[in-house]
Amino acid sequence: MEDKAKIQEAIKVQGEVVRKLKSEKANKEQIDEEVAKLLELKARLGGDDGKHQFVLKTAKGTRDYNPKQMAIREKVFNTIINCFKRHGAETIDTPVFELKVPFARYLAMNKITNIKRYHIAKVYRRDNPAMTRGRYREFYQCDFDIAGQYDAMIPDAECLRIVHEILSELDLGDFRIKVNDRRILDGMFAVCGVPDDKFRTICSTVDKLDKMPWEDVKKEMVNEKGLSEEAAEQIGEYVSMQGGKTLAERLLQDHKISQSKQACAGLSDIKLLFSYLELFHITDKVVFDLSLARGLDYYTGVIYEALLTQAGVAQISTEAQNGATSEENVSVGSVAGGGRYDGLVGMFDPKGRKVPCVGVSIGIERIFSIMEQKAESSAEKVRTTEVQVMVASAQKNLLEERLKLVTELWNAGIKAEVMYKKNPKLLSQLQHCEESGIPLVAILGEQELKDGVVKLRVVATREEADIARDHLIGEIRRRTSEA
Amino acid sequence: MEDKAKIQEAIKVQGEVVRKLKSEKANKEQIDEEVAKLLELKARLGGDDGKHQFVLKTAKGTRDYNPKQMAIREKVFNTIINCFKRHGAETIDTPVFELKVPFARYLAMNKITNIKRYHIAKVYRRDNPAMTRGRYREFYQCDFDIAGQYDAMIPDAECLRIVHEILSELDLGDFRIKVNDRRILDGMFAVCGVPDDKFRTICSTVDKLDKMPWEDVKKEMVNEKGLSEEAAEQIGEYVSMQGGKTLAERLLQDHKISQSKQACAGLSDIKLLFSYLELFHITDKVVFDLSLARGLDYYTGVIYEALLTQAGVAQISTEAQNGATSEENVSVGSVAGGGRYDGLVGMFDPKGRKVPCVGVSIGIERIFSIMEQKAESSAEKVRTTEVQVMVASAQKNLLEERLKLVTELWNAGIKAEVMYKKNPKLLSQLQHCEESGIPLVAILGEQELKDGVVKLRVVATREEADIARDHLIGEIRRRTSEA
Repeated sequence: MEDKAKIQEAIKVQGEVVRKLKSEKANKEQIDEEVAKLLELKARLGGDDGKHQFVLKTAKGTRDYNPKQMAIREKVFNTIINCFKRHGAETIDTPVFELKVPFARYLAMNKITNIKRYHIAKVYRRDNPAMTRGRYREFYQCDFDIAGQYDAMIPDAECLRIVHEILSELDLGDFRIKVNDRRILDGMFAVCGVPDDKFRTICSTVDKLDKMPWEDVKKEMVNEKGLSEEAAEQIGEYVSMQGGKTLAERLLQDHKISQSKQACAGLSDIKLLFSYLELFHITDKVVFDLSLARGLDYYTGVIYEALLTQAGVAQISTEAQNGATSEENVSVGSVAGGGRYDGLVGMFDPKGRKVPCVGVSIGIERIFSIMEQKAESSAEKVRTTEVQVMVASAQKNLLEERLKLVTELWNAGIKAEVMYKKNPKLLSQLQHCEESGIPLVAILGEQELKDGVVKLRVVATREEADIARDHLIGEIRRRTSEA
Repeated sequence: MEDKAKIQEAIKVQGEVVRKLKSEKANKEQIDEEVAKLLELKARLGGDDGKHQFVLKTAKGTRDYNPKQMAIREKVFNTIINCFKRHGAETIDTPVFELKVPFARYLAMNKITNIKRYHIAKVYRRDNPAMTRGRYREFYQCDFDIAGQYDAMIPDAECLRIVHEILSELDLGDFRIKVNDRRILDGMFAVCGVPDDKFRTICSTVDKLDKMPWEDVKKEMVNEKGLSEEAAEQIGEYVSMQGGKTLAERLLQDHKISQSKQACAGLSDIKLLFSYLELFHITDKVVFDLSLARGLDYYTGVIYEALLTQAGVAQISTEAQNGATSEENVSVGSVAGGGRYDGLVGMFDPKGRKVPCVGVSIGIERIFSIMEQKAESSAEKVRTTEVQVMVASAQKNLLEERLKLVTELWNAGIKAEVMYKKNPKLLSQLQHCEESGIPLVAILGEQELKDGVVKLRVVATREEADIARDHLIGEIRRRTSEA
């Protein structure tokens, strides 16, 4: 018997200890240990203390993911990681406590001059979360990069092929991959008469073209950024151009833009890139678009961005701007983006040795949101486990037999479950299968045990067949590999 | 042409901007954006600025994981997650900004009364890391729990089966799983004459028995904790007992310990538990050990801990105490631990509704360290990619043909690579295969193209065979599924 007053006193003291440790920012283990003691004291009171100090919500800007959301995430991860692996990528992990260029730092620090790697990790933002806009404090980033001195445009083309594979496999709806080149943009600005020191600001105005009509963009250039009407008009002509290899070839002959050496280098590379994209069979979705101007300054060559073009997606993805990528100016519908950055690694190297890089960020949080929306509007149920078979019985006192059989199945690598009850009702066992989408039930009864068989029931059709115990594992494998 | 002095001035100004934002703790995106601008300015200087402000090391208490380490981690994750899935577990994710009882909070908050789930996540410690002891600021936790009102000991037995499966599959060497029950410990202390208010402190002394000889433990009990010599002696007798079902049966007849109702309840459950463990075929590794006393106060019933018993492991795992589990007192060699905690969820529920739980934490960081050590001392190379075939050529001007073939392979889901060079040397292509363990090379030459075949070379044996192009995918699948 315990004295309640004594425990209540102890809770008070222990509460003080916890508060003190927290105010002193003591180490987490110590606080947790003391909190555990506090919880245990409260447990002894049996909930009689009347009030609960532990608020039932997650911290600001954070949320839980339930099994259904996690199952969707896992499917997305698997599709993406399988694609990276199909292309021979390794993976590395760098600490979360770091600026956004850990890959460049990693290469320079380890003197790595070539690698093809992906990195998928949860990252954190410190600023105010905006959950209504889907900006959470915790979110995933997913990057793929190829570093190394190689022949032009081959790794760049593979990055685009990877984006194409991932978006096709995830079946998110139709998409386009816009391609441009930093050098083409810069060259175009130069020949249109944009002063050097206005390249960046004009570039960021051009970048608004996917959200604003040309007239507004032009107004911003002229009225706010002080560009001449004429220069703006010329830019307007170029940034309305979209095409493929032929457009690149045409522009190489353009009397104006061909005056820029930079632009010509970019255009030649775009031309070469498209010849590789043809061999990779992905030109159906890739478009050379002179209005594409990604925000990050470290890009030195090809840049690209993938957008979902399906109706309805814009709405979903606006709500889902959960810091989708490490890029700043991800536009509505954007699900991937990247480009070539040949200068970044050299900045970290003490001797300035350059390691050319090209990479892509997949907007994985946005993809999660779209997949969740799709799952919700679909009639198909999302399974949260992969159980192939439930070991059940219709009669009493067969727990031991059920445990024996489920052990045989586990030993064979079959995903199997048994209810944690001595004498569960057959109906409740079958209901559990229907609810969690388990396709098969292995039913044991005294007759089956006597005959050395198991009754295998297909949940969807309610068909049943007696299977010799020796053949059960093979039969389960056969039936579940078909699905 | 750019004016270097002008850029250097701009770098200075931009550096000030970054420093100011950092000192104001501005939001991360903003800082990152300004840092990117700074980096770009430096890039324009072409490394001429002479000094590099970016220090090439990771933050204190953190480290990178290279592809080899990540490959080992992935193998461990896969083994563990496959086991959890084989047992029908779902997965959830809870925010990292939370005390160590997120699962209890999650259940109470969502009014979930039964679930079988795992959760693998990176967590962070705020206190001073001790990297020499393997205590890093970032580390993984891996938990599996079964929540719900079920018949006694069935889920508990499954947790032990899961630990047995994981440790067997990971092939870490021989292991033991010690089992005890909180109620047996408490009952034993009571019948030995330990005062109520000394249960916890005596319990933590008992817990040191795996690191200290009995004589020292006894001394601590008597001299430091003020226990009577007689009580200590009686405890000493009990805690030296190890066995299985028979020991539980014998103690149920023990004139002393059977006086405690609590102890009897615990002993009956241990007896029942062992009968299920027999059906699960895992009694070879499980031992009922009255000296096992896990530190956390929230345990209410069965407790257990898995230890590696192999020589040499102790040394490895001492170095590898990277905050391995959420448990405090993980002893040397311990790789998993857990128990039943029936009171915790109720503390979070406004109405105090209880949800019985039993769970296990896998010491995944420790397992990583052991696997890394094993890999280092083994002659076998750890592959960091899964590439099945390299598409190569011996002659010049076949880049297009290589890209066409690799596209065919990717379309068929084959993991394939091609070198990013127009005219790579055959030797360097073969060397790359040897270095990264790629088992097959598909070699294209003009003769092969003419004949409609591909020369398939086995890297290990150097055997070569001409395969009709139509049969290539099937042949690659056949050869790599054998491996």
